[in-house]
Amino acid sequence: MPHQTLRYAMIGGGQGSWIGEAHRKALALDNTARLVAGCFSSNHDRSQAFGQELGLPDLRVYGSAMELAEAEAALEDKPHFVVICTPNRHHLEQIKMLAAKGFPIVCDKPLCDTLAEGKEALKALASPGSGLLALTHCYAGYAMIKEARSLIRKGRLGTLRKVVVEYPQGWLMPEDAEEGKPAMSASTGVSSMVDVGTHAEHLARYVTGLQTKEVFADVSSFVPGGARTPDDFNVLVRYEGGQRGVLIASQSSSGEQNCLRLRVYGSEGSLDWMQEDPNLLILRLRDQPVQTLHRGQPYLSAEAQSCSRLPPGHPEGYLEAFANIYRSFAEAVQAYNRGEVANVDFPNAADGIASLAFVEAVSKSSETGTWVSAQP
Amino acid sequence: MPHQTLRYAMIGGGQGSWIGEAHRKALALDNTARLVAGCFSSNHDRSQAFGQELGLPDLRVYGSAMELAEAEAALEDKPHFVVICTPNRHHLEQIKMLAAKGFPIVCDKPLCDTLAEGKEALKALASPGSGLLALTHCYAGYAMIKEARSLIRKGRLGTLRKVVVEYPQGWLMPEDAEEGKPAMSASTGVSSMVDVGTHAEHLARYVTGLQTKEVFADVSSFVPGGARTPDDFNVLVRYEGGQRGVLIASQSSSGEQNCLRLRVYGSEGSLDWMQEDPNLLILRLRDQPVQTLHRGQPYLSAEAQSCSRLPPGHPEGYLEAFANIYRSFAEAVQAYNRGEVANVDFPNAADGIASLAFVEAVSKSSETGTWVSAQP
Amino acid sequence: MPHQTLRYAMIGGGQGSWIGEAHRKALALDNTARLVAGCFSSNHDRSQAFGQELGLPDLRVYGSAMELAEAEAALEDKPHFVVICTPNRHHLEQIKMLAAKGFPIVCDKPLCDTLAEGKEALKALASPGSGLLALTHCYAGYAMIKEARSLIRKGRLGTLRKVVVEYPQGWLMPEDAEEGKPAMSASTGVSSMVDVGTHAEHLARYVTGLQTKEVFADVSSFVPGGARTPDDFNVLVRYEGGQRGVLIASQSSSGEQNCLRLRVYGSEGSLDWMQEDPNLLILRLRDQPVQTLHRGQPYLSAEAQSCSRLPPGHPEGYLEAFANIYRSFAEAVQAYNRGEVANVDFPNAADGIASLAFVEAVSKSSETGTWVSAQP
Amino acid sequence: MPHQTLRYAMIGGGQGSWIGEAHRKALALDNTARLVAGCFSSNHDRSQAFGQELGLPDLRVYGSAMELAEAEAALEDKPHFVVICTPNRHHLEQIKMLAAKGFPIVCDKPLCDTLAEGKEALKALASPGSGLLALTHCYAGYAMIKEARSLIRKGRLGTLRKVVVEYPQGWLMPEDAEEGKPAMSASTGVSSMVDVGTHAEHLARYVTGLQTKEVFADVSSFVPGGARTPDDFNVLVRYEGGQRGVLIASQSSSGEQNCLRLRVYGSEGSLDWMQEDPNLLILRLRDQPVQTLHRGQPYLSAEAQSCSRLPPGHPEGYLEAFANIYRSFAEAVQAYNRGEVANVDFPNAADGIASLAFVEAVSKSSETGTWVSAQP
Repeated sequence: MPHQTLRYAMIGGGQGSWIGEAHRKALALDNTARLVAGCFSSNHDRSQAFGQELGLPDLRVYGSAMELAEAEAALEDKPHFVVICTPNRHHLEQIKMLAAKGFPIVCDKPLCDTLAEGKEALKALASPGSGLLALTHCYAGYAMIKEARSLIRKGRLGTLRKVVVEYPQGWLMPEDAEEGKPAMSASTGVSSMVDVGTHAEHLARYVTGLQTKEVFADVSSFVPGGARTPDDFNVLVRYEGGQRGVLIASQSSSGEQNCLRLRVYGSEGSLDWMQEDPNLLILRLRDQPVQTLHRGQPYLSAEAQSCSRLPPGHPEGYLEAFANIYRSFAEAVQAYNRGEVANVDFPNAADGIASLAFVEAVSKSSETGTWVSAQP
Repeated sequence: MPHQTLRYAMIGGGQGSWIGEAHRKALALDNTARLVAGCFSSNHDRSQAFGQELGLPDLRVYGSAMELAEAEAALEDKPHFVVICTPNRHHLEQIKMLAAKGFPIVCDKPLCDTLAEGKEALKALASPGSGLLALTHCYAGYAMIKEARSLIRKGRLGTLRKVVVEYPQGWLMPEDAEEGKPAMSASTGVSSMVDVGTHAEHLARYVTGLQTKEVFADVSSFVPGGARTPDDFNVLVRYEGGQRGVLIASQSSSGEQNCLRLRVYGSEGSLDWMQEDPNLLILRLRDQPVQTLHRGQPYLSAEAQSCSRLPPGHPEGYLEAFANIYRSFAEAVQAYNRGEVANVDFPNAADGIASLAFVEAVSKSSETGTWVSAQP
Repeated sequence: MPHQTLRYAMIGGGQGSWIGEAHRKALALDNTARLVAGCFSSNHDRSQAFGQELGLPDLRVYGSAMELAEAEAALEDKPHFVVICTPNRHHLEQIKMLAAKGFPIVCDKPLCDTLAEGKEALKALASPGSGLLALTHCYAGYAMIKEARSLIRKGRLGTLRKVVVEYPQGWLMPEDAEEGKPAMSASTGVSSMVDVGTHAEHLARYVTGLQTKEVFADVSSFVPGGARTPDDFNVLVRYEGGQRGVLIASQSSSGEQNCLRLRVYGSEGSLDWMQEDPNLLILRLRDQPVQTLHRGQPYLSAEAQSCSRLPPGHPEGYLEAFANIYRSFAEAVQAYNRGEVANVDFPNAADGIASLAFVEAVSKSSETGTWVSAQP
Repeated sequence: MPHQTLRYAMIGGGQGSWIGEAHRKALALDNTARLVAGCFSSNHDRSQAFGQELGLPDLRVYGSAMELAEAEAALEDKPHFVVICTPNRHHLEQIKMLAAKGFPIVCDKPLCDTLAEGKEALKALASPGSGLLALTHCYAGYAMIKEARSLIRKGRLGTLRKVVVEYPQGWLMPEDAEEGKPAMSASTGVSSMVDVGTHAEHLARYVTGLQTKEVFADVSSFVPGGARTPDDFNVLVRYEGGQRGVLIASQSSSGEQNCLRLRVYGSEGSLDWMQEDPNLLILRLRDQPVQTLHRGQPYLSAEAQSCSRLPPGHPEGYLEAFANIYRSFAEAVQAYNRGEVANVDFPNAADGIASLAFVEAVSKSSETGTWVSAQP
């Protein structure tokens, strides 16, 4: 069957948004979909200007998400899906709007600002004619993360005991905002738990399949200045099966770049993966030499193989991981359009809900000094 | 100025060619150009079938390079350039054909099979109305390679003394050919000096700016079996300025992946870069802590910054390096179309000639047991 | 002044005790002291046999610590100090006994089994004529740990924010005990918090100078079998100055070796040190290339230089770190014998008390599910 | 059988000699032998002063090697062996002198200055009553080097193909001599081939068992200044069995420390060991995950186990490797004294001869521009 390039529209992701650019490149890489419409700014002129840079016809560039949803839904060659890259606080409204028009949605994480909003979004998605939503927890798209999940499912680690997931970040430090440089958290009032912590939480859950029972958290705000949004989270985790976890999420870790790392310990061995060196996965089995598995090698699982594009030793990176999320989503969209259900592998709204429940439990634990349930 | 997506055609790179796919993805990544025509096989049906998979109209898919060149040259929306991904032995003929029609060309390395052919190609390119050719020595496209070059130009290493460039490869071992798996050298009779050695030679020259004076080589064929194409090259290099070099190129290095590594030593310090970990560059200055520079960081040179797409800690890989070659080539094509000359940064036919001169000097040295000039 | 080799006696550390051997080698390395007496087993014959292997005369090998203390104290060429390598539960009694005889003491960590015992030991040490005790938190002896402390004291990290110290261990897993192999915790009923956690706690305190205010802990016992001594500790830490910490100590981390790691974050940068690669220290300053500092280099602090024996690139290891503790202790003993007070740098009884207070707070927190003060 | 501590004397290795100190520490570490006599300087007063620092009685500290040899040979408690740490140019004379007195000898490498001298030394050693000589190619003493040798002997790499051994050094750069800092080569007129190259040559031979047939070399002198002793050697090697090799030895590699590295390639896989990270050995088998083997682990060979002192994850270093040479030599001495021949494992005079033959072949090749036999 010939490859079908889908059509998509984008809301947000305009001038200066590196994540918008990452979405577009990830979609272009595999020729998964081409951009046909967009709303890149609530300022109509700016939106048009940016659309022109991207080669879009003015007719299909809008000044509001609502306009886009309505106008595009009416077209014969309407987008197969719409990507939301706006600030978190707009997600709920836009999800509802797009779901109402029957558009499959890709939403940059987190799903929404709060668990309550997330639940409302989920309800909107459950309405007839809608339902497909991918959340771009892009780190779950790395081939070696697929391998990690596969090894755990095969029982290579024995009985799971413990998860250590860390996301110390320093490249976008909140104090930078004060110096006029981009800074995720401080500039938007979004805590680092939402910004980077949800990635860590999702990755641990995705790879291990463990469900969080309860959390205990210590939350701090180290960066001086106005907002004092929490920028450092240290969380103890108890999973349903009795396993233990430690989650560290921080954007005040000076000197770090984007150092997401996952370690999983079981009775027979442990796994270690680092996002900054994503083409390899370390497997430490008891009383055996340490193994380093490399992307692209024939000994990897089918899941890891299918998420790989290049031969071993030819590094893939962040955009390939991102593109893997999109590739699976595109299959789901095409299956959906044929009235089928694809065997898909991308983070969805339920994942978003689980993350938001985790975030809220962390906040509450920090306030009360007690273990708090993370059940959605 | 709005981004202009160019049009391109491809010759070769059909079913089963991972390098053809790499070219297409590298062009898609930045929306640099879109594929409008192709000749993917000398078997017309297979070419058509593959073109359909890529979404091309049958009309613009051909069974011979000649047909493509003639038909496409006559179109109003003809390709802005043509990519050659065929076996090396076809390069000369195709370059001449495309140059005669005035097409800018991207040619997968090496330029040709022999130095004599390379010189003939260069002559063809010098004819009026032609002239633009990029050779995809993709490793020169990495951002941290730009940084290495910049640091050397700034004199950070002092007076250059020595270059050690290695390319031990094991992922495509010639013996694999006998087991029916893809294997670059053995299956095509191309020596590993051409296949991987030219990448190493080019990278060292690109980063240091040094010109090879003469070489002494020891050439071996370790892999058992029919062809016995040389698969292991150890070369001593003398540069024009008195610097020394060691070049190792091998495809019989069992266990290795694609381990291209470049070290440059000067009076004040040394640089170390490894292709399998391409987002970093190690700078060792005398009597100072070792520095590790990371792609995307603000302290890098403008050259390195401009070849970077993602924030620090978000790995870029092989395709981004490849895409950087294309991005610069596309600028050159656009400038050329405007009658201007762009300030470009991509390997060209002269580079190809220098590599082929090096390859031939290596062969001759190995045969004669003497130092041999590598002047083209 | 000629180097003076001291004399020492050892209690414990007999047949099969690798730590006893480590003490002896650390003392021999620098010719710091030579063994002149010992009690290597409570079985007199076994003690004698082991003493003979070590080349000791039978007369100075004893079957009880008490005998050793009394007999040796009466000799003219009595030991300058006595080393305790017995199981923790014997430490208090032996410390009291040796202190009563006026012997300077080196005690393998931990000081005692409980905080109450530790306080009793401290009281014994304060009696007239006694007082010198070194606790062999050997990891604090590494040259690059001295450098880390020096950098922090010089303010290179700015205001300290956070400490992450981990000690996942797998080489002595408790289940091994059941298979007849040596296994620290399970075989002795000592929790991993005491066994490895105190090393981590001490290292963090030593390098940063921060005092723990309170802890919150989650304690588990993953290894199946009889004793079910806790083998996994995840601890959140709050320091007096408002800094935060995470301490992970585990002996059920299958696949790990002895992976003590310390990271310290401040407003201007962070430090990273790994015990398994101890000759280097990573310094990450904001917006600068990552620096790797190497033992033996001229750019290091005087403290780090003075703890180094070999030129750069000639690895030192665990025994050198251990020997550094002894070297400083020997200086203190000699100063003490001259009636002076040396400027010493080794963990002492007060450090032991602080560790035991930490251990007890961890236990109590785990039981109560609350933050617990770690003040001794 | 109780451990017997031997007695030794040392010639050279006085004030400011770090290698003399390394010998003494390596001997102390395992209580292998204790220093009983020495000649630390040809200036009698300086020799005495240094002997006093080491705690030697004046009577047994001499101002000439000859005096030491004669006086000590006459004593009842004479040394079991004598260590030579003098400049290379004195080795032959001292070896002859000590051999004549029947002393087993440990000689710091190289054996002598020239191959002719080496052969003369070998003849002297073959005289009745003499014969034991260890050459401290200390890098061969590392436990993981024993493992590498064992894996190759077991055929784990299949048929050997190629050896790449490098020893770029920058910590003792010749230009430092001009600045009044210690600098091996320039200050003594000894080429880097002798100083570091012989270590590399020996290590490759020790691990692989391959005999060099012929070499081709390019020799340079990069460091400005008076002596212009060659400081950079790039050597192509052909082994008797048809294998190929590359040897790089350099002391003008600014920024490097002591970066001895050995890679061995065979038909089934390759080995990789780096002296600066000596507790691990990388084994890359075709189509399998890369394995990292760690010192102290139960899966290692008996040879590697027997050269290990500490549990896994507790780093050993240079001195332990050095001490392993001495441990084996001490066994040989004791066996010799009992009239037996031990199964020993240390570099000997024949190894020294092989290295010197290699060095001379390198020089000659560089002069003649031809392949030169390296047969002694």
